[in-house]
Amino acid sequence: MSNRLEQQLHFVLEIDRLKQILRQTLVSDGSRRENSAEHSWHLAMMAILLCEYSNQFIDTLRTVKMLLIHDLVEIDAGDTYCYDEAAMVGKEERERCAAERIFGLLPSDQSGEIRALWDEFEARRTPESKFANALDRLQPVLLNFHTQGRAWKEHGITLAQVLSRNTIIEEGSEALWKHVRALFEQAVELKYLKP
Amino acid sequence: MSNRLEQQLHFVLEIDRLKQILRQTLVSDGSRRENSAEHSWHLAMMAILLCEYSNQFIDTLRTVKMLLIHDLVEIDAGDTYCYDEAAMVGKEERERCAAERIFGLLPSDQSGEIRALWDEFEARRTPESKFANALDRLQPVLLNFHTQGRAWKEHGITLAQVLSRNTIIEEGSEALWKHVRALFEQAVELKYLKP
Repeated sequence: MSNRLEQQLHFVLEIDRLKQILRQTLVSDGSRRENSAEHSWHLAMMAILLCEYSNQFIDTLRTVKMLLIHDLVEIDAGDTYCYDEAAMVGKEERERCAAERIFGLLPSDQSGEIRALWDEFEARRTPESKFANALDRLQPVLLNFHTQGRAWKEHGITLAQVLSRNTIIEEGSEALWKHVRALFEQAVELKYLKP
Repeated sequence: MSNRLEQQLHFVLEIDRLKQILRQTLVSDGSRRENSAEHSWHLAMMAILLCEYSNQFIDTLRTVKMLLIHDLVEIDAGDTYCYDEAAMVGKEERERCAAERIFGLLPSDQSGEIRALWDEFEARRTPESKFANALDRLQPVLLNFHTQGRAWKEHGITLAQVLSRNTIIEEGSEALWKHVRALFEQAVELKYLKP
């Protein structure tokens, strides 16, 4: 086996560990927490199905790639719950170290490509990264609403918190943001979210 | 909300159920069985990383889309273990019905696109579908080998069976098939597979 293929297949096995990283969101039947690998699959599917709602024209392949790789750093850094302010301290530094190690397992051309995609996702400046980030926020909203707000209720989340956290959806998609705001209003009425 | 967006978001929630479909393969630390959603994510990542090994030039986006959607029919039809001959009876018909119902939830333009991608994957005639099928076979081989052949041993799988099942890897990638054959030889030596 060539050294290049060896490196690539080692990486393929290493990233299998993303299947063990649990998020706070529940899967749609509420039976268990979602893991970051299946979450990434779900987002890539959403990118394919919902790209027409992006505010700006986007390159679908780049958006899908970004979503497939955006959580890989959690293999080392873990999933940080976005409403846990204490845990959010140092998140950026932890994830940067993780990116160095994990992407560094690949041959340098691919390691550079994946790192650039991850940096692009984090910086949220291009149309693709704005839309990818919008989907990354929309998906847990859909699942939280569908599971009667259980994850929100467990953590006592308020309307102000979800509005502030999710307003960046609008940067990627005004149409999806309009839908999400309507869902939040319903969620308050149904007592899934604190007013 | 427009009727179109409503249909699309209903589909997004419906396909969440793929996270509950368990395969025979174990995840890399052997702690549990893999589900079909995270398996699809893993394959899409492999398409991005390994496309240089395809025998023919391929459109990466079409290959990735095909891999993201290829198992959706299992939401209704379940995962059929490839070495279970009794379960394989009627699989095609079950999956065709599932495709009708599940893809039919989408607006017709998207339902048509996804159905065409699924048919293409199943027919294994285009370069993209040959390579996608090669990855769909390679991934469980890597995980089975990495977990000391536990899934193979549990079902008493032989070298002849894995060779016959996986020979289609060669149609998509001679380089990857060469690697897989070497792994099988090692797997017999290590008693992961029956000779």
